[in-house]
Amino acid sequence: MSYDFDEIDRIVNARSLAVVGASNSPTKFGYMFTRSQVTMGFDGPLYLVNPKEDEIMGRRSYPDIRSLPQAPDLVYLTIPAHRSMEVLKDCAEVGVKAVIITASGFREIGERGKALEAEALEISRAGGFRIIGPNCFGIYNPRNGLTLLPGHDFSTRTGDVAFISQSGGYSAHVARQAKSLGIDFSAVISYGNAADLDESDFLRYFTDDPETAIITAYVEGARDGARFAEALKAAASAKPVVIWKVGKEESSRRAVISHTGSLAGSPALWDALIKQSDAIEASGVDELLDIVLALKYIGRGKAKRLLISGGGGGLGAYGADLAEREGLEVPDLDPATLSRMQDVLDRAGAVAGNPLDIGAPLIPVPFLEGALREAALNPTTEVLVFDLAVNFGYDVAGDFGIERAVEILCDARKVSGRPVVAVLYSRSFDPDDMRFETMIRRMRKRLNAGGVLVFPTMARAVRALGRLS
Amino acid sequence: MSYDFDEIDRIVNARSLAVVGASNSPTKFGYMFTRSQVTMGFDGPLYLVNPKEDEIMGRRSYPDIRSLPQAPDLVYLTIPAHRSMEVLKDCAEVGVKAVIITASGFREIGERGKALEAEALEISRAGGFRIIGPNCFGIYNPRNGLTLLPGHDFSTRTGDVAFISQSGGYSAHVARQAKSLGIDFSAVISYGNAADLDESDFLRYFTDDPETAIITAYVEGARDGARFAEALKAAASAKPVVIWKVGKEESSRRAVISHTGSLAGSPALWDALIKQSDAIEASGVDELLDIVLALKYIGRGKAKRLLISGGGGGLGAYGADLAEREGLEVPDLDPATLSRMQDVLDRAGAVAGNPLDIGAPLIPVPFLEGALREAALNPTTEVLVFDLAVNFGYDVAGDFGIERAVEILCDARKVSGRPVVAVLYSRSFDPDDMRFETMIRRMRKRLNAGGVLVFPTMARAVRALGRLS
Repeated sequence: MSYDFDEIDRIVNARSLAVVGASNSPTKFGYMFTRSQVTMGFDGPLYLVNPKEDEIMGRRSYPDIRSLPQAPDLVYLTIPAHRSMEVLKDCAEVGVKAVIITASGFREIGERGKALEAEALEISRAGGFRIIGPNCFGIYNPRNGLTLLPGHDFSTRTGDVAFISQSGGYSAHVARQAKSLGIDFSAVISYGNAADLDESDFLRYFTDDPETAIITAYVEGARDGARFAEALKAAASAKPVVIWKVGKEESSRRAVISHTGSLAGSPALWDALIKQSDAIEASGVDELLDIVLALKYIGRGKAKRLLISGGGGGLGAYGADLAEREGLEVPDLDPATLSRMQDVLDRAGAVAGNPLDIGAPLIPVPFLEGALREAALNPTTEVLVFDLAVNFGYDVAGDFGIERAVEILCDARKVSGRPVVAVLYSRSFDPDDMRFETMIRRMRKRLNAGGVLVFPTMARAVRALGRLS
Repeated sequence: MSYDFDEIDRIVNARSLAVVGASNSPTKFGYMFTRSQVTMGFDGPLYLVNPKEDEIMGRRSYPDIRSLPQAPDLVYLTIPAHRSMEVLKDCAEVGVKAVIITASGFREIGERGKALEAEALEISRAGGFRIIGPNCFGIYNPRNGLTLLPGHDFSTRTGDVAFISQSGGYSAHVARQAKSLGIDFSAVISYGNAADLDESDFLRYFTDDPETAIITAYVEGARDGARFAEALKAAASAKPVVIWKVGKEESSRRAVISHTGSLAGSPALWDALIKQSDAIEASGVDELLDIVLALKYIGRGKAKRLLISGGGGGLGAYGADLAEREGLEVPDLDPATLSRMQDVLDRAGAVAGNPLDIGAPLIPVPFLEGALREAALNPTTEVLVFDLAVNFGYDVAGDFGIERAVEILCDARKVSGRPVVAVLYSRSFDPDDMRFETMIRRMRKRLNAGGVLVFPTMARAVRALGRLS
């Protein structure tokens, strides 16, 4: 079927929802989803359907779709595959717009499942509704409060990042991790087997969606390679696209087939496809979100020349190694900057230059302030990277040492108008010592509020910056 | 000078110590080190030397080395470079065994510093004592309580891991991070410019040291390339050696020269050197410690064939991709295992196989227990890797869901006798929500106590395992 922006938009922004298989039994997916959706608070009528219950979580339970007071825009199906066909026929009869089929047991299990999936598709086409899934977690959209399987605690704030995910687990994982990093979504779509609406449709939808500024995707394969290539190219020329492709290796392709019944496709083909499209490739949840943060705080093509700094010579050498390996530059300081920096940094252990070693663990505030201002304002600096080594003044001055460094970094950002990246990490994994971790997290929030981007390691910082170029 | 095990051993296990430059002024290195050493509690006479003070931290202050009641085995110098020569002459006069020179301002700053460094070396040779440094943090040895610059809170437990570090900052960073991961040291040596005793000497020392089972090193360059190559080869054939080499790229080599005055050497040469020696290469503190953990829990050459499992198909596909890229295998299950696993795992969403998808977020305990036992006992499994996705049962069962999974992993480890690796991560970085992070850390400790190795991401787990082969 052809792509239609309005059609998908009406599904994502559904104004009425029915949950078929809603349940009071905590071991059922139908319980978990209903609890998630009730907790998030759907912005419109939410109908619960289960012929065996009169009431679920204090709400009326309807015996079937046909008994509802209205045809819901969207139906969320949590019942097993073999029992779904009858419900789909009801959906066709009353005229719903779309059905999310969460159950597994379709194409990914072989012939029997393929036949069921074909039947579902036939019913939907005859009935004029679209299918999301099967074998998926659904759609999360903070605008109408729609959520996906375990998403009772997702952010209620609307953002401009879209995430399209063949994996249900990663759709939840990414949404949750993003929330605590301050990344908000226009929508997250877990699409599983993609029997009907597929990765290409969603990619085109978010390309056209004015609410979406950055598109991210986890893909195992594409239903239609040529169509996906075209959609990816169009998307990446319109806005930044971050794509995480799995199924590149032999055993992984085997896993992909048993997971979503997808054909992973040749790794070389995918590499070429991603490269030609100008999309940004990511591997893993952390890297995907690191890149999103870098895109939001800095943007593409503005982070090639780094000034790497911190307390100690080792971290500068290490950071420079990493940066050059990512194709970034750590250029010499401008001579005038170098001379001014030498003036303010005239003390034992400090080395003016790029990398810049400010000679921690003990540095008086005016030295640090002056040196970092010079570093940020240096003509060849595009991004100032500072490693807030965890022992930075902490052992002598306690939180105060780190707090001052945080203020100075926010100041360098403000004065220079250039991107500033802080590397900030905990030094304890001890459950009985949460004080340091709590302090680090507070500092992270403060840095973010001051426009400073934060990563937990130099390697992750440099990797994300490298992906912007 | 030639290498002498006993000579270095007497320094590392010094029985008396003097701190020259000890201070009451919190902005001075001499204050910080003295506080660290007093807090750690040196196991022998600790003399503080400062002609301007009568008392430091409640202890008597001596005017100079000559006034001490005995010649200390080891002298820790925290005074500036240009004022050090007189003290070194005193050291020669009274007959100390070794001096740690922490000050910078020697070879790394150019001609003037080179001359000072040569002078220091001349005094030490004439006086018959050895130098550690200059431009270093010193030695940490839990056996005699000796510590290095900011190390007031290092572990007091003796371990079997040695760390040799050209960087002072990383010597502290590694010691601290290791402590909270449960890694203990035989000793950590920060050696800076290596004017006298160098990386080759320390490498040979730890090769011969019966207390050391694993040698780790951060190096920027080698004083004598051929000597280091020989020492590295001998070390790596005696025990596992994990080496982190920086200064491979242009700007990084520049940084290395200004940091410790070291010549980084050609990257290709170093790559060949490390490869030929059979040492394990690491990049960054996290990776270095990840490899140490993998060596301690698993050992070399026993982690090639993985069984990758977790709740969800995506993470298996991703894990398999990563594993094969690291040269590891994710082989098919033995047919008998597969058949038994299918019996216990007969439920929607679960896929028996390798990768194994146990179909979270909701799985009854007996299913998980049975499936993971089969997975661990499968004949082709060398290491069982399980991703404890953070939403694993948590949203329904709270901590209980994760606690049960932790017990089951410890059980699989016990029953199979094979290495089990858990991937366990927090899902919140919010300073106002430390509950989840605390719980995750508790679970980590419990897993470790049950012999299960824990990593915070699948990528780090697979990377560390890959380095064992």
